[in-house]
Amino acid sequence: MLKSLPEWTHLTGHAARIALPENHLKYLINRQNRLENFSIRGGGLFYDFTRQRIDEQVLHSLVNLAKIRKIKQRFNQMKTGEHVNNTENRAALHTATRSFSTDPVMDSGVDVMPDIRRIRDEIRQFSADFHSGKIAGTHGKLFTDVVVIGIGGSYLGSEFVATALQNFADKNIKLHFLSNVDIDNFGAIIDRIIPETTLWIVISKSYTTAETLANTNLVLQFLTQKGLQAKNHIVTVTSKGSPGDDPANPVLKSFHMFDFIGGRYSVTSAVGGVPLSLYLGYDRFEEFLKGAEEIDIHANTAPEEKNIPLIAALISVWNNNFLGYPAQGLIPYSSPLSKLSAHIQQLSMESNGKAGESNGKSVSGHDEGVDFYCGSIIFGEPGTNAQHSFFQLAHQGRPFPIEFIGVVNPCHDKYTEKLKGVTNHQELWANLVAQSQALATGKEDSNPAKFFPGNRPSATLLINDLSPKNIGRLLAFYEAKTVFEAFIWGINPFDQYGVELGKTMAADIRKEIAGKNKNPDYQFDDRDPVRKFYLDVLFNKKM
Amino acid sequence: MLKSLPEWTHLTGHAARIALPENHLKYLINRQNRLENFSIRGGGLFYDFTRQRIDEQVLHSLVNLAKIRKIKQRFNQMKTGEHVNNTENRAALHTATRSFSTDPVMDSGVDVMPDIRRIRDEIRQFSADFHSGKIAGTHGKLFTDVVVIGIGGSYLGSEFVATALQNFADKNIKLHFLSNVDIDNFGAIIDRIIPETTLWIVISKSYTTAETLANTNLVLQFLTQKGLQAKNHIVTVTSKGSPGDDPANPVLKSFHMFDFIGGRYSVTSAVGGVPLSLYLGYDRFEEFLKGAEEIDIHANTAPEEKNIPLIAALISVWNNNFLGYPAQGLIPYSSPLSKLSAHIQQLSMESNGKAGESNGKSVSGHDEGVDFYCGSIIFGEPGTNAQHSFFQLAHQGRPFPIEFIGVVNPCHDKYTEKLKGVTNHQELWANLVAQSQALATGKEDSNPAKFFPGNRPSATLLINDLSPKNIGRLLAFYEAKTVFEAFIWGINPFDQYGVELGKTMAADIRKEIAGKNKNPDYQFDDRDPVRKFYLDVLFNKKM
Repeated sequence: MLKSLPEWTHLTGHAARIALPENHLKYLINRQNRLENFSIRGGGLFYDFTRQRIDEQVLHSLVNLAKIRKIKQRFNQMKTGEHVNNTENRAALHTATRSFSTDPVMDSGVDVMPDIRRIRDEIRQFSADFHSGKIAGTHGKLFTDVVVIGIGGSYLGSEFVATALQNFADKNIKLHFLSNVDIDNFGAIIDRIIPETTLWIVISKSYTTAETLANTNLVLQFLTQKGLQAKNHIVTVTSKGSPGDDPANPVLKSFHMFDFIGGRYSVTSAVGGVPLSLYLGYDRFEEFLKGAEEIDIHANTAPEEKNIPLIAALISVWNNNFLGYPAQGLIPYSSPLSKLSAHIQQLSMESNGKAGESNGKSVSGHDEGVDFYCGSIIFGEPGTNAQHSFFQLAHQGRPFPIEFIGVVNPCHDKYTEKLKGVTNHQELWANLVAQSQALATGKEDSNPAKFFPGNRPSATLLINDLSPKNIGRLLAFYEAKTVFEAFIWGINPFDQYGVELGKTMAADIRKEIAGKNKNPDYQFDDRDPVRKFYLDVLFNKKM
Repeated sequence: MLKSLPEWTHLTGHAARIALPENHLKYLINRQNRLENFSIRGGGLFYDFTRQRIDEQVLHSLVNLAKIRKIKQRFNQMKTGEHVNNTENRAALHTATRSFSTDPVMDSGVDVMPDIRRIRDEIRQFSADFHSGKIAGTHGKLFTDVVVIGIGGSYLGSEFVATALQNFADKNIKLHFLSNVDIDNFGAIIDRIIPETTLWIVISKSYTTAETLANTNLVLQFLTQKGLQAKNHIVTVTSKGSPGDDPANPVLKSFHMFDFIGGRYSVTSAVGGVPLSLYLGYDRFEEFLKGAEEIDIHANTAPEEKNIPLIAALISVWNNNFLGYPAQGLIPYSSPLSKLSAHIQQLSMESNGKAGESNGKSVSGHDEGVDFYCGSIIFGEPGTNAQHSFFQLAHQGRPFPIEFIGVVNPCHDKYTEKLKGVTNHQELWANLVAQSQALATGKEDSNPAKFFPGNRPSATLLINDLSPKNIGRLLAFYEAKTVFEAFIWGINPFDQYGVELGKTMAADIRKEIAGKNKNPDYQFDDRDPVRKFYLDVLFNKKM
């Protein structure tokens, strides 16, 4: 068990040592060769962890932990089709969706690559036909609006990538996301689109997701009202043979996805491929895939000490389990990366937001029975905006580590007017550099209101620019980091049983509501007065 | 000192008692009259705290703490102009900006209300002229785009309110926010607007905010390039006599703000008033103010036991300081409330993200010297989206309390197609009710992966619909809750010294960059090799 490993004991000792005043970050960062020893370049990324609360000994023990836990081997097993999603007895082959190698990838004796290549070809062809007008809206007009109907992993990744690459987008196409079952999400979108030239992409692996089916049901009614047909306006991304891939309900096109791709890891599959190719063009989508592939290869082959997502994962474990930080901020100094934190929030918290191994003890109904929690609360906004929002707490309140992201070259490079002698991009960069420095060093002051304790850890990840390839690298970095964390903790990052209880209870309540819809005399179950209260409010339409 | 009060000791004892297995939430919620005793109706809101980990004794001690700390008196002092912002020797009179009473509000012997009424009248008139076309873009065309240039409190509140009330918006006006100094924020906005019919609203109290000045500088250059003039296309919201209110730099109109309004509390002043009146019409803005006023009166007059923001603040303190939760989720079951959490994140974390009173001890350079941290990490996404994102962690990972918000009647009520016997709105509501229940009760299972510990606290706040008045109530509820928390902790929620160190360090780095811009031979200071590395990357334009 994890906590009985000698490396765990060593790390516990290191944590006590690092807490000593002489190991405050303001001293650590000034040690000899800090930058050389605590930064890595690889896979097109630069990762600087000079401002993490670690020293050579901590790093050494962390790397040993990774070796003992065989997490690189585990990554390779994942990449080569082993059923690492053991609770569901499935492979986890998101890496295959961006493989351009000619090597087969076997899942239970079957090579998955021919299917993956076929679907990429289908997306390329569909995207070409969409942009050329061969596929067009009713009355033959070019499509103007694309609406993704999907929730969670079926849209967050595409939203992140589309926003990050907005500068490459086809200016004639608007991309919308209908995710929430809230009728006001539907209402807002149909106010913004042109029905005759709107393509709806329904994304659900099982085609049983409650929100997605409810919204699709409304869209079908809406199309009928407008005299339009599903076979001209709807495409689906779903499992082969699901209700969304049924010739009895004809649609323009169905793209298949597979049980070896989980929702939150699906942006490089057809889930991201279809909307992103329509919005950006297929070639950009393929560049994006190639960036992701590059990081997969780096994660699989770079030695532990030089493996960026692996080292980042070790630092997460260190911050979480040894230094006790409950949360992590994610602050990209780039406004097109504004949707990154929402995507990584899902990727990380849904994968790893679980209780850790309980050392053989049965997990009791109380926190005490859990050895430790895996996963952190992930949240963030772009810098410098975040500085003017929650950085007060980051500097003087409850501490939490931050991952900064810097983009060396912005998209818009023609506005170079200076104020105080610097361009906007230089001003942004000055703030990026200053924040990690201020958080680490702090500042003494006899006035407690102006005293900064410092010793607040951060890392900085750099990409060269907002190219499709770099966005692919960024995505795959976070995916690899997430699974490396899970492999250290010994949890399965590909299931999400924690969302089931709420679904079951919602289904019970739905039945009661449906009962009352059918029969107005129906009386709500009053064994739970709070629940009854809310159901009465719903039907009375007032509080 | 707070921690030496007998109430603090009582609460510490209660926390130990509440941690006992027999006080698991699944038992607490079934106690007699739970709903009656742990919910409040008032000021147009309904607040349900049945699923918080409190019982009568905890509530009693919390209310006593509020009384001993005289937080209602403190609220009244704030509302009547006392200099509660003691570190800056200023009043905090955001409540005056939505007062429609004829009573004077005195700040240092001067009634502030005549100025506040005058500015409201100016906004009403300007908005009327804008909508009628009396004020128009170059060539006399009606304005089509309004861009707010402002960061932090100068835009987050307006963005929240504009998004929440989007259904009331003038469909001919697009509202944009240029907040980030990142050149890609500017670049994206100028790609979307029509220069001749764009009005820019520069918002900065001091007119010294680095980001806002840099962006304004670019906009001035952009206008010149397009042959347009600031006096036709720019309005400012700033302090009287600031550089933004200087006849030497003529603009279309300047609206004044005052030193007694802090940025994050400014959405009911001209900061929100100008953009929101242009986007929604002045009458809706006034309705919004009246909703906020109603909560101010409730917060000021309702007895502690029936005071919604006061009880909510006490529960925050309980969860933070006694139960040890480091974060709070904010989950509105309403997609138009998608920007609520970003606004409250700033309001709460910038106001209260501080170290608590240190019991007379000097605050040392290390966490151990701090008695406790005030403020929580606030984050959130709308439900049901959040269920498909980070609720795995909420149910089975590290626990954190959640504030749910329910909207009884959606905006769009004409789409009532049912699936599985329920409408979309009913499906949404079923999920809202189910989540708080599932978090509280949990579920036993011999399989650890399917075991739910439960005992995870939440509150639910209801509003009747997304009217301007209810959005005003919601805003003022969070403002009052935030200041009540601070008054219990004994901190000043109106200053933000924690953001100063980063600014100072950024200014130093800016000087180095400007030096190199002037003289390419300039060598960066190499005493900090990490900093030098980043500056070299910036100038080399590669990592």
